[in-house]
Amino acid sequence: MDFFFKPQGVAVIGATPNPFKGGNAILKNLIAGFRGGIYPINPRYEEIEGLPCFPTVEEAPDPVDLAIVFVPGPQVPDAVGACAQRRIPGVIIESGGFAETGDDGGRRQASLVAMARQTGIRLWGPNCMGLVDVVNGHVFSFLDPRAFPSLIPGRVSLVVQSGMLSAGFLVDIMTHGVMGISKVCSVGNKIDVDECDLLPWLLEDPDTDVIGLYLESLLNGRRFLDICRNAAKPIVVLKGGRSPKGAQAAMSHTASLAGDNRIIQGAFAQAGIVEASDFKELTDLCRTLSLFPAHRKEHPGRIAVLTYSGGAGIVSADFIAAHGLETAELSESTKEEIGRLFPEWMPVNNPVDLWPAMERHAAAEVDVINQSLAATCADPQVDAVFIHAFVGSFRIRLDLEEVARQSRETGKPVFIWLLGRRDDAFQFQNEARELGIPVFSELGRAVACMAAALNKR
Amino acid sequence: MDFFFKPQGVAVIGATPNPFKGGNAILKNLIAGFRGGIYPINPRYEEIEGLPCFPTVEEAPDPVDLAIVFVPGPQVPDAVGACAQRRIPGVIIESGGFAETGDDGGRRQASLVAMARQTGIRLWGPNCMGLVDVVNGHVFSFLDPRAFPSLIPGRVSLVVQSGMLSAGFLVDIMTHGVMGISKVCSVGNKIDVDECDLLPWLLEDPDTDVIGLYLESLLNGRRFLDICRNAAKPIVVLKGGRSPKGAQAAMSHTASLAGDNRIIQGAFAQAGIVEASDFKELTDLCRTLSLFPAHRKEHPGRIAVLTYSGGAGIVSADFIAAHGLETAELSESTKEEIGRLFPEWMPVNNPVDLWPAMERHAAAEVDVINQSLAATCADPQVDAVFIHAFVGSFRIRLDLEEVARQSRETGKPVFIWLLGRRDDAFQFQNEARELGIPVFSELGRAVACMAAALNKR
Repeated sequence: MDFFFKPQGVAVIGATPNPFKGGNAILKNLIAGFRGGIYPINPRYEEIEGLPCFPTVEEAPDPVDLAIVFVPGPQVPDAVGACAQRRIPGVIIESGGFAETGDDGGRRQASLVAMARQTGIRLWGPNCMGLVDVVNGHVFSFLDPRAFPSLIPGRVSLVVQSGMLSAGFLVDIMTHGVMGISKVCSVGNKIDVDECDLLPWLLEDPDTDVIGLYLESLLNGRRFLDICRNAAKPIVVLKGGRSPKGAQAAMSHTASLAGDNRIIQGAFAQAGIVEASDFKELTDLCRTLSLFPAHRKEHPGRIAVLTYSGGAGIVSADFIAAHGLETAELSESTKEEIGRLFPEWMPVNNPVDLWPAMERHAAAEVDVINQSLAATCADPQVDAVFIHAFVGSFRIRLDLEEVARQSRETGKPVFIWLLGRRDDAFQFQNEARELGIPVFSELGRAVACMAAALNKR
Repeated sequence: MDFFFKPQGVAVIGATPNPFKGGNAILKNLIAGFRGGIYPINPRYEEIEGLPCFPTVEEAPDPVDLAIVFVPGPQVPDAVGACAQRRIPGVIIESGGFAETGDDGGRRQASLVAMARQTGIRLWGPNCMGLVDVVNGHVFSFLDPRAFPSLIPGRVSLVVQSGMLSAGFLVDIMTHGVMGISKVCSVGNKIDVDECDLLPWLLEDPDTDVIGLYLESLLNGRRFLDICRNAAKPIVVLKGGRSPKGAQAAMSHTASLAGDNRIIQGAFAQAGIVEASDFKELTDLCRTLSLFPAHRKEHPGRIAVLTYSGGAGIVSADFIAAHGLETAELSESTKEEIGRLFPEWMPVNNPVDLWPAMERHAAAEVDVINQSLAATCADPQVDAVFIHAFVGSFRIRLDLEEVARQSRETGKPVFIWLLGRRDDAFQFQNEARELGIPVFSELGRAVACMAAALNKR
């Protein structure tokens, strides 16, 4: 599978100088970040985007170990045939027009499957967006390079059985600053290369710590579950087609049989898979799990909550209970330490409402938070800390570097719930991401991800 | 209760020229938006913020029908006593230092309760942020006016038993452009005025269409449920303290007894209350319900989904089933109409994947969406439409005015799920809000709110 991720030379079948076509975008994306050979294939041109163009793959110089195909569906089998003949080991077929388009397309797809079986050539797609490798700058996709924000590298890799979604999602995730990405693999109809091929590769990939999958079908369920069960990295799955209508839609989308949901759900749990129900929940779970790889083990899951709002503390405790975690019983020394910051009348309970202490130490709110954080992080009866933050003009600022330091030195995960002014929140979110601290805008989502990180789901 | 919401004259007990104190902010907030008499009370000054200052409430000129008290806890009983003597009908006590602070505070609180019983004076608070009336510009609160973004008027009123939360929330909601607000009532320890006083008033308020409540306790549960059962406006409740630890925290936060959660939950459902589990879910439910007041009735809940992503369509269908709604069976005429836009090979199913039709009519994507929307809105087998949108550089733009027009003319609610570039999404969100179209960034939340609007929760 290395030729898909780290090819030495790439042929682009369907390359064109027309800047409004995907075949041009594929080329531009390669030129922008790929350091190996790039060979546009098109009999009508001698040169495209400054690169010599070849009439057929046969004529492109060695080595060519990957071809990206973006020609109309009916021309795809011939193009792939030529690749097989030239002994190119892998092809990413990004064209649509296969089983998802009815009988003719179905026959075309079957002919590709047969070709793969006969020749051993590996086929990725069709009907997909290909591969975006943010860390290495490899964009093997017809995504318009002008449409993309600058990509943020990260430790999460995604396998997505949906084209537009992977593209739209990438734009959404990157511009909101919520998480970085290692690789996005859009696998489409997965007639040959599927999650059972990609997962083992990503599990060995030094640039990937967590793998998130959006799947509409499980073609080889037993093998997939075996891979997950033995995986040393967390795996999060969103399974589309859990309802009868959803399954029906999956059939027409990627010609996928969705399978019995109840059976799948139980099997997922047994294989140690974290299940997501929505796209952003999938990415929230992945980014959280990538930060605390050592914590998915047997764990009491005792959480200290530091808040500026009694109400948010109460609702946090409710979610903590609902997700199988515990609101920690703070040890006496922690209570004493925090108690020194508190007004005399106030006992220290968890959730810890820091507001009265902040009022008492006006202008030194940061110290109140830092000292409370240090005490709870050091407490042997606490497994993780949940801090509530606000950004805007009130003075409830958090010293993010101190939070990162405390978390690192004590080995306790720290999670942040953030309310506040939109632009300040965006900046905060970005700083926290760079420091490796997960930030959430909803309490429920924060605790759900906390539960995953602490092995409770 | 009118004197709380529309007083003629307001005395500010604890007024001060010190710009870092809440007693100064209360005054500035009044000056900024309140058109009645404003009377700072403080024996140490002759004038504050350009207004004549009075040594006691006794000396403030008639009419004074509301006092806002922000003096240290121990001084509050005397201040309230003076108000009672002057026959001021209502007092908002924003100071803390009562039952939430232990025995001394508890005794102080008891003396206030006794005073209310004996004199008939109505007491709002203590330990609260007071009232923010966005529509009328009445901010009866110590919130720092510099800390606030411009407030967006809307049709949702909130009753919140948590001070910092209501303030932080207001900043968050307003700057993210998600919803407008009519009134936020922060009720704190609610020793006298509580949800059973505020609800009937808000139910009659012409500026309020939906009421959302965050409650830590139900002091008069039976009466509250009766009010809700007979309410002509939707009521959404987030109940804090549903878990034992949460209930314990509620006790120390606002000295509230949280009550048995299972009993409360059943009673809520019987009273027609929509229950939320998180703060943003509360506001999302409220803003959605404020847009479609006529749709909370018996309803098949048949949803047409128009998407650009097969995957998002499938997951939508899954959520629709999970929330007791139905993925609509489109009528033949709708299928024919949309079918004309589709490539020949493609049958029209719901969820409707518009992507192949958009590719076929490149540069006229908006027409594809508008025509599909018109057909589904007009379909008698469809009760509401769920459109997926993307903003950024891809050409999947939505004509929001057309969406609003179709929705209005056919009486079918339209919901939007939005992915995309952060700044474009913000602008889209704001435009949609002004046009009365609800936008969500997560499929699950969108369908949960849809279910509430269509009476399925």
